[in-house]
Amino acid sequence: MSPQVASRPGGRSARVQAAVHAAVKELLAETDRADLTVPAIAERAQVTPSTIYRRWGDLAALLADVAVERIRPDAPPADTGSAKGDITAWAEQYSEETSSPIGQEMLRDILAARSATANPVRCCELVRRQLDIIAERASQRGEFMPAPETILDRVVAPIVYRTLFDVPPSADQVRSLVGELWAEHARPFER
Amino acid sequence: MSPQVASRPGGRSARVQAAVHAAVKELLAETDRADLTVPAIAERAQVTPSTIYRRWGDLAALLADVAVERIRPDAPPADTGSAKGDITAWAEQYSEETSSPIGQEMLRDILAARSATANPVRCCELVRRQLDIIAERASQRGEFMPAPETILDRVVAPIVYRTLFDVPPSADQVRSLVGELWAEHARPFER
Repeated sequence: MSPQVASRPGGRSARVQAAVHAAVKELLAETDRADLTVPAIAERAQVTPSTIYRRWGDLAALLADVAVERIRPDAPPADTGSAKGDITAWAEQYSEETSSPIGQEMLRDILAARSATANPVRCCELVRRQLDIIAERASQRGEFMPAPETILDRVVAPIVYRTLFDVPPSADQVRSLVGELWAEHARPFER
Repeated sequence: MSPQVASRPGGRSARVQAAVHAAVKELLAETDRADLTVPAIAERAQVTPSTIYRRWGDLAALLADVAVERIRPDAPPADTGSAKGDITAWAEQYSEETSSPIGQEMLRDILAARSATANPVRCCELVRRQLDIIAERASQRGEFMPAPETILDRVVAPIVYRTLFDVPPSADQVRSLVGELWAEHARPFER
């Protein structure tokens, strides 16, 4: 590939996105978030404020976009050899990340972007994709696994609800959520 | 009671709260919420902006406080004659209210108040209190009912998670959440 490749159509757009995202992350680490402003982000990213407004609409939408990128998993879920093990390991890690102070900030940023209603769904889509990978592995092993949508309701929803509105679940509670779901499905013929 | 009762210690504080809450509700109905400001609310409520800042801290905390009051149930859950019926009726109504445009705004307002971390918990406490009333009735009838904490995980959490991050559940889906929970508990001795 020639070095000009970074200048192809779309190249500037991608560079602006990277510079603005990096500026937000740096400023979030340095500044109280209540003091974060579009002009300050623009200055750090070496773009004009109007570039940011044009592309993201407002500060809340930009923060949500950064948050979705930050929670995007950088690897597939660990392969523990069984679907129950995979889901347990994934759920423990997801719960730990979600309930960390920065994880809670990310969720709130994603929900605060009223103008970009698609953002919270992007968050759910990231989870679905991880669950689908685990489901695909289970199917290759010829192993039973509850549907990803059931895992969303029975494992992911309580983790997120408790974290946002109550007290984040302990690792034991997360294991119980998975354990109870598997215990039910382990005896389908008794029904 | 004498008419002076409204002037007792605490009376002014309660009047300020009522006037400010009413001003927020009126302005929310009239104005785009992005244009809502503390000075505009203060003017409408006939108090000074500093009264609002002193009491609530910032606009987000005030909006969260108003939202918690708006979602506070004004009646106990309907008595349908059985715990499963009570929980089903309550969950259907809760889901309908939560997923309405105004219900979603309320949840987001409650989560957006970073400075008042107790607010989201107040939201969960309101739900617990309704579930406790249903549990108390079930106990008086000598009827089995899953623990309120189990109902939070199995019924409330999916309703809230799906509403915030995916697609609000249909009434059928809400009934299934309740139905599946009862189906499991209906055969405790098979375990």
